[in-house]
Amino acid sequence: MTAPPLANLINELTKLPGIGGKSAARLAYFILKRPSAEAEALATAILEVKTKIFRCSTCNNMTDIDPCAICIDPRRDPTLICVVEEAFNIPTIEQTRDFKGVYHVLLGALSPLKGIGPQDIDVAGLIKRVQNSGVREVIVATNPNVEGEATASYIAQQLRGIAVKTTRLAFGLPVGGDLEYADQVTMAKALEGRREI
Amino acid sequence: MTAPPLANLINELTKLPGIGGKSAARLAYFILKRPSAEAEALATAILEVKTKIFRCSTCNNMTDIDPCAICIDPRRDPTLICVVEEAFNIPTIEQTRDFKGVYHVLLGALSPLKGIGPQDIDVAGLIKRVQNSGVREVIVATNPNVEGEATASYIAQQLRGIAVKTTRLAFGLPVGGDLEYADQVTMAKALEGRREI
Repeated sequence: MTAPPLANLINELTKLPGIGGKSAARLAYFILKRPSAEAEALATAILEVKTKIFRCSTCNNMTDIDPCAICIDPRRDPTLICVVEEAFNIPTIEQTRDFKGVYHVLLGALSPLKGIGPQDIDVAGLIKRVQNSGVREVIVATNPNVEGEATASYIAQQLRGIAVKTTRLAFGLPVGGDLEYADQVTMAKALEGRREI
Repeated sequence: MTAPPLANLINELTKLPGIGGKSAARLAYFILKRPSAEAEALATAILEVKTKIFRCSTCNNMTDIDPCAICIDPRRDPTLICVVEEAFNIPTIEQTRDFKGVYHVLLGALSPLKGIGPQDIDVAGLIKRVQNSGVREVIVATNPNVEGEATASYIAQQLRGIAVKTTRLAFGLPVGGDLEYADQVTMAKALEGRREI
């Protein structure tokens, strides 16, 4: 009995990740209640990302200029590359304000289960960048899970013949967490990576 | 360093209820990765609800025809009115398939704290419907919280002079829940409303 245009919006919203039926209905009714200008701004923003955003030809980051703002920033060190799985991992690293190098987006991670092999992610582009532009360090910031670890090992292996330092993000206890909630693997990694104080 | 059209979409998405910065970024990158046709379908659906959906002149439900599909359904009993705070409460009741009457949407609930008084919600429309169309029962299905209870009391008081039965949804233990998680008030209500088996 939900009116068709409303049912249609709810249906479109449920296609988004993490949005179930209840959330979609809540969002749809919210959009209905707000001024038309706000709905138009949202609709326009959705259309604009699809027309104006593309991948940086150097690092695969999402950008509206090529090379992207990070690649062309003269304050950043192009000899330090941080490798991430997806473009949306970049803001997570950027918010630390501690990284002053550039990025390389793999566009995925190795996953034999999902049938994703080395040819499906952009390791070749990374190797080419390392070989051609005097890169001194590659920080592998793939996810701390099975796929991310496999990808990190593969990258390390591919870079072995090249004169570049390859590093991996540290594993250990999440800051602000509680010791008793740490899982076995994280705890083992935290012990293994212990430092003198 | 996030490209402006992408930052703009993330910003628009954070205006939606329950969508924080991280969720908005996740949704925006998801939209970026999907085919353009999907983004267009979502944008169109957003615009269409704003142009095609309005309030039913009888019951205030969200509709694309007037009176709404529920009000004009000949299989429904117009002498039984279920009163809800918002139009989005209707699908929750409809999904039970147990209610065969019609609805009245108040468009809010009484809240002295938020400055919402009787003139700000549509109790007058409800009284008029009850007086003019031989309504036999009004089921008050406002929320089980302070505002909803205050609204229910006010409605009951307003209907006192009219020959109509006024009822309130039952309070008690949520089905499928665990007794130990029931809060004090719900438990008291469950005891108070106990039935012979």
